[in-house]
Amino acid sequence: MSQTFAIGIDIGGTNTDLGLVRSDGECLTRLNFPTTDCTTADTFVERLCAAIGELLEKSGSPTLLGIGIGAPNGNSLTGCIEEASNLPQLSNLPLKQILEERLHLPVAVGNDANAAALGEMVYGGAKDLQDFVTITLGTGVGSGIVINRRLLLGVHGNAGEIGHSILVPDGRLCSCGRRGCVEEYASARGICKTFAELRQAKGSYNGMLDGFADNQLSPKLIAEAAQQGDALSIETFERTGYYLGLACANVVSHLAPQKIFLMGGPTQAGSLLMNPTRKSFDDNLLSIYKSQVEIELTHLRSNDAAILGAAALINL
Amino acid sequence: MSQTFAIGIDIGGTNTDLGLVRSDGECLTRLNFPTTDCTTADTFVERLCAAIGELLEKSGSPTLLGIGIGAPNGNSLTGCIEEASNLPQLSNLPLKQILEERLHLPVAVGNDANAAALGEMVYGGAKDLQDFVTITLGTGVGSGIVINRRLLLGVHGNAGEIGHSILVPDGRLCSCGRRGCVEEYASARGICKTFAELRQAKGSYNGMLDGFADNQLSPKLIAEAAQQGDALSIETFERTGYYLGLACANVVSHLAPQKIFLMGGPTQAGSLLMNPTRKSFDDNLLSIYKSQVEIELTHLRSNDAAILGAAALINL
Repeated sequence: MSQTFAIGIDIGGTNTDLGLVRSDGECLTRLNFPTTDCTTADTFVERLCAAIGELLEKSGSPTLLGIGIGAPNGNSLTGCIEEASNLPQLSNLPLKQILEERLHLPVAVGNDANAAALGEMVYGGAKDLQDFVTITLGTGVGSGIVINRRLLLGVHGNAGEIGHSILVPDGRLCSCGRRGCVEEYASARGICKTFAELRQAKGSYNGMLDGFADNQLSPKLIAEAAQQGDALSIETFERTGYYLGLACANVVSHLAPQKIFLMGGPTQAGSLLMNPTRKSFDDNLLSIYKSQVEIELTHLRSNDAAILGAAALINL
Repeated sequence: MSQTFAIGIDIGGTNTDLGLVRSDGECLTRLNFPTTDCTTADTFVERLCAAIGELLEKSGSPTLLGIGIGAPNGNSLTGCIEEASNLPQLSNLPLKQILEERLHLPVAVGNDANAAALGEMVYGGAKDLQDFVTITLGTGVGSGIVINRRLLLGVHGNAGEIGHSILVPDGRLCSCGRRGCVEEYASARGICKTFAELRQAKGSYNGMLDGFADNQLSPKLIAEAAQQGDALSIETFERTGYYLGLACANVVSHLAPQKIFLMGGPTQAGSLLMNPTRKSFDDNLLSIYKSQVEIELTHLRSNDAAILGAAALINL
């Protein structure tokens, strides 16, 4: 079967990444530019079109199926990035329409977390699955829900905010203004908060991260310390896994997917995070679902996941 | 448009209710028999077939589209009632197959909570909705999820157990063996537990339900006391609404339905339950969903809801 090509674009608050993606999931050519360089919508559109031109030139001008764009709050129903707190200059910009008129190619815009789910379906571990969920741990916790091989969007295009399910009533204050969201326990920020809370509760701690103030912590640092045996860091991942497993069990009570895929920076801690997550999931799963649902790490390489997800928006 | 007819059958642990349902949602003829009279699968099937015959005779033998059967753990994919703890004599009985062979009519079997959602869609308040959820408060808390006007079943037919989402980590012990399920806070049992907990916490209570031991309570009694101004009973519904509103906000974070319909015995408390539920829902809803989702009482009459739901299994 001959291969086809799409461009995947991941617009983040800091960087915009572009890649030419072949239909077998190979990301052939990549480039990026700082989103923060573009202070207006117009300069962003110019910079993006120039980057697309450059990418195509580097790639020998393949024939494209189209361009897929993933962004926080990207709405596939409207083709806009809506109320993007990290990207105020792009808020409510009709990106799909502008680019289609400029480039004469199909353009699809989507929420980055939903794009990740499509990436898993088109190029990753969900090629043969009907119903699955992806949960992306990062600055926040994003999620994408696929039912009958279609993304669940809801009438307004904003279904699948599992990171903002309330896991702990009256729990930690979340950036959304509510309390106890999954995000406050399972995101990079949540993991650091758990470490800080445990450290404070212990009273005295003289482990490996003793020299780091709370605001200097990162999941990577805590994972490294845990791998070297730091008890508090290990406990941090155990607590994180407890919360994440509980959140996954609640996903199953709603949706009964075949698999839940975890991805994003903190999942690079591997078994440190996955073992307690799976234990908590098993402990908290309603018995009728036992052995029907698995939690897995994404099958996509972390470097490519966002671009593949964006490309999958068009490559379906 | 000419009317069509279906038989709806609701098999409960105590009673089995049958009704002839016209396509406009009118339940024309009804009868019932005690499920508990039938101690074996064979006697149940005989009794059920006799009752169907009697119902048709009373109704002037209309031409039927088929027979829909709702039951706890009814599985529409297998046509069986699976692991029915209230109906051990019917466990894993291939009811659809048996009845189709006996009666030469299409038969559909479904979970009673899913049937309720279909009832709402075919005959009730969801006639024009694409995505909605029904939550049935009763002995337990059942739920049905409709997406793009199709029931969400999942690959194994058991999606939509919102009553067994964990709302309060390490909370009340649930009949399922886990802790903190929605069901332990929002079912009839949960409401009584909340009253009992509040009464115990107060130390002294000499209100209207003073003469009732914990195991003599019911949501109906508590609602009556609340309507007459009993402070503890009012507080019980306020707490119940808090939990139920929180559970509904979490449903929205997953599914973003257009509406959530509440039904079942405790909802007959009306505004006593609905006002605090809506307040908690508003307080706990992620801001992007504000004004996109409503909580409503079912549009089906409580007497007919289970039969209409069962009939809707066939009448789609």
